[in-house]
Amino acid sequence: MPGIGRKSAQRIAFYLLERDRDGATILSSALAEAAEGIGHCSRCRMYTEHDLCSICSASGRDNTQLCVVESPADVMAIEEATGFKGLYFVLMGHLSPLDGIGPEELGLAALQKRLREDGIAELIIATNATVEGDATAHYLAEMATRLDVQASRIAHGVPLGGELEFVDSGTLSHAFFGRRAVE
Amino acid sequence: MPGIGRKSAQRIAFYLLERDRDGATILSSALAEAAEGIGHCSRCRMYTEHDLCSICSASGRDNTQLCVVESPADVMAIEEATGFKGLYFVLMGHLSPLDGIGPEELGLAALQKRLREDGIAELIIATNATVEGDATAHYLAEMATRLDVQASRIAHGVPLGGELEFVDSGTLSHAFFGRRAVE
Repeated sequence: MPGIGRKSAQRIAFYLLERDRDGATILSSALAEAAEGIGHCSRCRMYTEHDLCSICSASGRDNTQLCVVESPADVMAIEEATGFKGLYFVLMGHLSPLDGIGPEELGLAALQKRLREDGIAELIIATNATVEGDATAHYLAEMATRLDVQASRIAHGVPLGGELEFVDSGTLSHAFFGRRAVE
Repeated sequence: MPGIGRKSAQRIAFYLLERDRDGATILSSALAEAAEGIGHCSRCRMYTEHDLCSICSASGRDNTQLCVVESPADVMAIEEATGFKGLYFVLMGHLSPLDGIGPEELGLAALQKRLREDGIAELIIATNATVEGDATAHYLAEMATRLDVQASRIAHGVPLGGELEFVDSGTLSHAFFGRRAVE
């Protein structure tokens, strides 16, 4: 499991066995329930216990803006950081032909259907700033353009608090050529 | 000195004394020459041994673009990363009223003069993405606007290779609201 190696695992196991058997039982049933009960939102593919996730079923969200991300963790991060009030679509990965992950695995047919039918004005592409994320972003942007939906991509550049001297040259180059006019 | 604490200093000193006295002499005279001979470029305030630095005196640079940075290290970073062919202005710091650093200490009168007289079409503001860098950027942008020069600022956002999940929320928020339309 991420962040838990062999030693940490042993420590946790012995701790539960020695001091907190009740906790172990509770954790066990919570895990079983989660493994059993949590599926994907039928609309945005986010994790949920219901047919629709809490965001898709919330009232008062702006359904003209759709933000595409790679993973459920990204949804949480954007919700916390930005106060974005639109809807999401979770790819659950990125295009990676070598690993056999194509448009089908990412549910792009469902996304295309939403772009066509749901009256979406802007597709905000928030895939990672990695090579695979870039390739996926290009694919999504083309799809949106074909369907006459405005696509936009979140900004890449110097991170907040960053000093130019310590930023890697790829980021600096992107930031420089991605400069924007100050009004 | 940055990166060299008490122990490293002692190790270097003993190394030079025990094994490389010639090196110590060479280093000593190089330091003395540098301390004596290196001043600031009269045009852009970059370090140089001459009146004009190698960038200001180079032929073939585009003198309609002027990039403002906080430190000489930033000039080196941008030169290496971007292939930018315009000219620079080095503030040698940022606005910081509490430390007594105002427009005068940053040589902004000279910058203003260049904006007015040198036929500059774009002022590229590449101060750091810190609070002080932001304040300085605002000041510079206002100055440029007053003088009818287009100001632009390098992009802030997710660094290259960055995954959304691991980016701090301030940066993510900036990246989200700084998103740009894909053509």
